[in-house]
Amino acid sequence: MKVLNDLLGYNNLKIYQDTEWFSFSLDSVLLPNFVTLNKNTKKILDLGTGNAPIPMILSTITDAKIFGIEIQKDVYELAVESIKYNNLEDRIKIINDDMKNLDKYFNPNYFDVIISNPPYFKIEEKSKKNDNIHKVIARHEEKIKIEDIILIAKKYLDNNGIFALVHRTDRLIEILDLLKKNNLEPKRIKFIYPKKESNSNMFLIECRKNGNPGLKVEKPLYVHNNNGDYLDEINELFRR
Amino acid sequence: MKVLNDLLGYNNLKIYQDTEWFSFSLDSVLLPNFVTLNKNTKKILDLGTGNAPIPMILSTITDAKIFGIEIQKDVYELAVESIKYNNLEDRIKIINDDMKNLDKYFNPNYFDVIISNPPYFKIEEKSKKNDNIHKVIARHEEKIKIEDIILIAKKYLDNNGIFALVHRTDRLIEILDLLKKNNLEPKRIKFIYPKKESNSNMFLIECRKNGNPGLKVEKPLYVHNNNGDYLDEINELFRR
Repeated sequence: MKVLNDLLGYNNLKIYQDTEWFSFSLDSVLLPNFVTLNKNTKKILDLGTGNAPIPMILSTITDAKIFGIEIQKDVYELAVESIKYNNLEDRIKIINDDMKNLDKYFNPNYFDVIISNPPYFKIEEKSKKNDNIHKVIARHEEKIKIEDIILIAKKYLDNNGIFALVHRTDRLIEILDLLKKNNLEPKRIKFIYPKKESNSNMFLIECRKNGNPGLKVEKPLYVHNNNGDYLDEINELFRR
Repeated sequence: MKVLNDLLGYNNLKIYQDTEWFSFSLDSVLLPNFVTLNKNTKKILDLGTGNAPIPMILSTITDAKIFGIEIQKDVYELAVESIKYNNLEDRIKIINDDMKNLDKYFNPNYFDVIISNPPYFKIEEKSKKNDNIHKVIARHEEKIKIEDIILIAKKYLDNNGIFALVHRTDRLIEILDLLKKNNLEPKRIKFIYPKKESNSNMFLIECRKNGNPGLKVEKPLYVHNNNGDYLDEINELFRR
């Protein structure tokens, strides 16, 4: 069922979602609030943008031109509808294609910032049988693997450009290895803990293309209190 | 000046230190309390043991036979004196040699657990001019580099054996890369934060030789409150 939801409180953004496919998640709110943006950030690309929650949130933070690419046509169409509804057509441009075809649209080294909330699960890690194809593609590495996303980020980032990613902590080692091999030097990591006493389940990372070594592991982010409610720091992200 | 200090409250251990050289630090208390020890842990080696705080703390936690190796003769002598004072000669054996000469003492694959609180600083990161040689060797990679320590750990660990390390967070990426290349698979990391609002300055890591991928990032450890006092979780480590 297609619905029109609040994306963020303060800016009154609305987002079209299909509740039978998938809904935007906390990860999509955390990532654009984590990445370093400044006055030199002119062009941003979101790889695997889904129904475009990340570009829409970015539009409330930066004046940069924001691009997204999404392989699924009907998910792309939701993104376009939301962008139109919020009058963001001048700020955000979404492309409906496989991100492996980006060379049809952009030259290498074009972007200042590339960002991605990619599929988290390897294909072997089978999803529930009744998951629909939209959800499978968004969550599993069916159409694109993290290796490919990292190669694409490297290719289309300007020298010293920023790549920011959210992913599962149990894949951290593999991902750091891939980033390092591709000269995307990790500069900041923030670990996310579902509760105070839990292990981390997700992390946010920011790298610089051809950057110098030297990592900061920032203060942790806790999501829920013991009652399962969002903690203040999370609620604030929804009240921009 | 040589002094006899309390090592831990509860067990009444004492440790000889020379206040003009260096004193054992919190890192040496955190590491033995972090590493996984169980009934199959029979032989443990501490690389660069200094005046042996780690072997002495381990002796309060495990019945394993504990070995340490220390290159500096006068620091080694302090270790031997402390071990004698605490009647731990049957439990702990310290060797005075360069750890690159371990083949004189042990066969490859001999140990179940290898542990190290190594020199943190690269030689380029110059210490204060008036630092004494004991402190320089303990803190800077003058005599041994992290690369060498990791190679030695790999060689002398039994298959599936554990390597545990404490190090500076700004060298995390480099260290993960070295561990991975040497088939020491990172399984657990705990980040240490000097205060709640700070970035992490140190981390504890545990790897398994030839282990399967799959990392847990455990709940963070905070050291000080805003007044600079140790937090309860730290104080408890000193009250064993």
